[in-house]
Amino acid sequence: MQYTAELIAVGTELLLGNIANTDAQMLSEGLSTLGINVYYHTVVGDNPQRLKEALEIARRRANIIITTGGLGPTYDDLTKQTICEAFGLPLEFHEDIWEEICAYFMQRMKREDIPEGNKQQAMLPVGCTVLDNPVGTAPGCAFEKDGIHVVMLPGPPFECRYLFENRARAYLEKLTHERIFSHELRVFGMGESQVEHALHEIMVRGTNPTLAPYAKTGECLLRATAKAHTEEEAEAMLRPLIGEVREILGDLIYGEDVGSLEEVVFALLKERGLTFSAAESCTGGLIAKRFTDLPGASAVFQGGVVSYTNAVKEQALGVPHELIEKHGAVSEAVACAMAEGCRRLCGSDVAVSVTGVAGPDRDENGNPVGMVFLGLATEHGTICRQVDLSGGRGRTRSDIRTLAGHHAFDLVRRSLLNTVL
Amino acid sequence: MQYTAELIAVGTELLLGNIANTDAQMLSEGLSTLGINVYYHTVVGDNPQRLKEALEIARRRANIIITTGGLGPTYDDLTKQTICEAFGLPLEFHEDIWEEICAYFMQRMKREDIPEGNKQQAMLPVGCTVLDNPVGTAPGCAFEKDGIHVVMLPGPPFECRYLFENRARAYLEKLTHERIFSHELRVFGMGESQVEHALHEIMVRGTNPTLAPYAKTGECLLRATAKAHTEEEAEAMLRPLIGEVREILGDLIYGEDVGSLEEVVFALLKERGLTFSAAESCTGGLIAKRFTDLPGASAVFQGGVVSYTNAVKEQALGVPHELIEKHGAVSEAVACAMAEGCRRLCGSDVAVSVTGVAGPDRDENGNPVGMVFLGLATEHGTICRQVDLSGGRGRTRSDIRTLAGHHAFDLVRRSLLNTVL
Repeated sequence: MQYTAELIAVGTELLLGNIANTDAQMLSEGLSTLGINVYYHTVVGDNPQRLKEALEIARRRANIIITTGGLGPTYDDLTKQTICEAFGLPLEFHEDIWEEICAYFMQRMKREDIPEGNKQQAMLPVGCTVLDNPVGTAPGCAFEKDGIHVVMLPGPPFECRYLFENRARAYLEKLTHERIFSHELRVFGMGESQVEHALHEIMVRGTNPTLAPYAKTGECLLRATAKAHTEEEAEAMLRPLIGEVREILGDLIYGEDVGSLEEVVFALLKERGLTFSAAESCTGGLIAKRFTDLPGASAVFQGGVVSYTNAVKEQALGVPHELIEKHGAVSEAVACAMAEGCRRLCGSDVAVSVTGVAGPDRDENGNPVGMVFLGLATEHGTICRQVDLSGGRGRTRSDIRTLAGHHAFDLVRRSLLNTVL
Repeated sequence: MQYTAELIAVGTELLLGNIANTDAQMLSEGLSTLGINVYYHTVVGDNPQRLKEALEIARRRANIIITTGGLGPTYDDLTKQTICEAFGLPLEFHEDIWEEICAYFMQRMKREDIPEGNKQQAMLPVGCTVLDNPVGTAPGCAFEKDGIHVVMLPGPPFECRYLFENRARAYLEKLTHERIFSHELRVFGMGESQVEHALHEIMVRGTNPTLAPYAKTGECLLRATAKAHTEEEAEAMLRPLIGEVREILGDLIYGEDVGSLEEVVFALLKERGLTFSAAESCTGGLIAKRFTDLPGASAVFQGGVVSYTNAVKEQALGVPHELIEKHGAVSEAVACAMAEGCRRLCGSDVAVSVTGVAGPDRDENGNPVGMVFLGLATEHGTICRQVDLSGGRGRTRSDIRTLAGHHAFDLVRRSLLNTVL
């Protein structure tokens, strides 16, 4: 049987534009990996009549309805009541859920005066599958009525994601009698359309396994997905596919099932017992910030210098005054001296540096926006790389800084793998 | 006449979860400032039949339909054709738009071989109002048929925002015969619910002018809006309202019609001809990154040090070894010494410092997650402030770093205004 899902987000804050409907994005991505089609998203306010109308429309065109939001303890949280009315199901009180809510309040919120409104959160449709929520107070639930499956999830993105991944996904897998396995490949250094072009034959080849691209800022994510009965069976389909992709893209693929370039660099450095530092001009702290976003970064990261002025380049990093006079701050020579100075100052094994023009204007020496030099200092010496990040229309200062950061981390990665271009 | 708008986003990439529907958020926020109700958002794929069904539903429940996406040059960009069929309007070719598209390609894309598919972008509904697009190739358009106004905007967020603000907004203002004026107040140092509580009487008071809160990470935005015939008339309504709010919140309001705390700090420093630098431990470069996100930051920002290890604190910032031994790295004494050392090293008038525990674990001295010290060094001396950012459930390492950054900028702001707590 082919399943088609429709997403209904409930919340006036979405209609006022206070927040974007990121739950719909997360669920759509998750449902696509389950092989479930999504044809419509609907957003409706905290209004029972309009929610009821949206449900009537959805049940005519989908056999799975997933709602997000409206499960909270306040008077305008009406999703459960409205759905139960629309489907002719009564609500019943769950003593065990109520106890969990009370325990949650006492342990996590350090409160014993549990608001009466929360009792409504322990009311669930008769006979439903409870999707218990250890990361919040509102449990989700799922039921089937007249051939339509309804899944209700809480609205806060963290809770919604948790309940989908850890509760609802299993419910949906049971419906589709399929288990879905996937791996993500991360690509840096080739545009999305070029990646699609290079992999076109593989992408259109079949329906199981499949390969699909997702664009991210300045990089590309490829997801290989297989439907199978066991993980072994899925791996037997996925490994040859991934092998083919690796054959074509080579070291443009910086990782499999990883979150970011900096995560890969962190893992490589940690594995080899090497420490890291960064000297930043145009990225202005972005590289240090991204690296220290990673929990546990202190095991590797020593520190960094944001040398926005020439004086700081000289005084903190020891870049010779004459070098800047002669070549300008945005130059190969200064990038190398910055990396070396940073490595010395921070006492790190590896130091990366960035100096360039992020815009909006040319620098005082007339260098164009997007001109960037990267330096890398290790015990084996210092190398430099120039990149042109000027890009096309619509490329902003922020984009140039983000891309310069990507290139800096990629330079470290390639140096550690001995594949610096 | 009361206008009710429905948003229809067209794009299979939304249903696959590749991107979130941020256009809907932007438009909803804009429409609410125009006094136009939004009751539903719908997302539909690049499928003419399903788009037609969504249009049929929307025209029954709204009198303004705004579509985003599907105006591009490729075969699956079918919004205009489908809408014209649904409303019984033919498309006509606009020679002048075609010339603009050609000129755009030659100037911006440096191409003379304009793809044939782009010709379809110069086809628009007969008699429509053209919303010309200087920031892309797809023009938008608007028309009225049978009492329904239809506005079509391109999907890429930058173009969509530009065309809404600079083209569609005027079209809608003409309908509602109202002009809307608003000011935004930014609040830091009080939670959203406390702000709502403090301003409750003002918020529920009337419908023109109005005051509404919007939550942002760790801060609160208040929007005061008035409907009037002239700007003077609106200002005459808004000034007393804003005066009342300022009376209640005082210097918790850090700015009016500004983007962020760092923007306010930047403006204050620039106005006074002062330079700035930052020494960061737990924020790991975030403060420098945020400050240098601002175009023109180099006029004020000298540089910074990310002193993740004690060795870098000592060597780069000159924090005495004994001080760290005695008080620990997360302490008032070290925060002060970091700020002073940074001010000296970077030669700046003002230096801020942050040292604390961002988590996920306690530091090696057993200090709890969320314990943060901020230092501020100026020619008048050095001060320190301790904040507890441990927060409740769901507060992450990333939240703590963001909040520590907010507090650091707020400390600088208050010191410049002589209102340090």
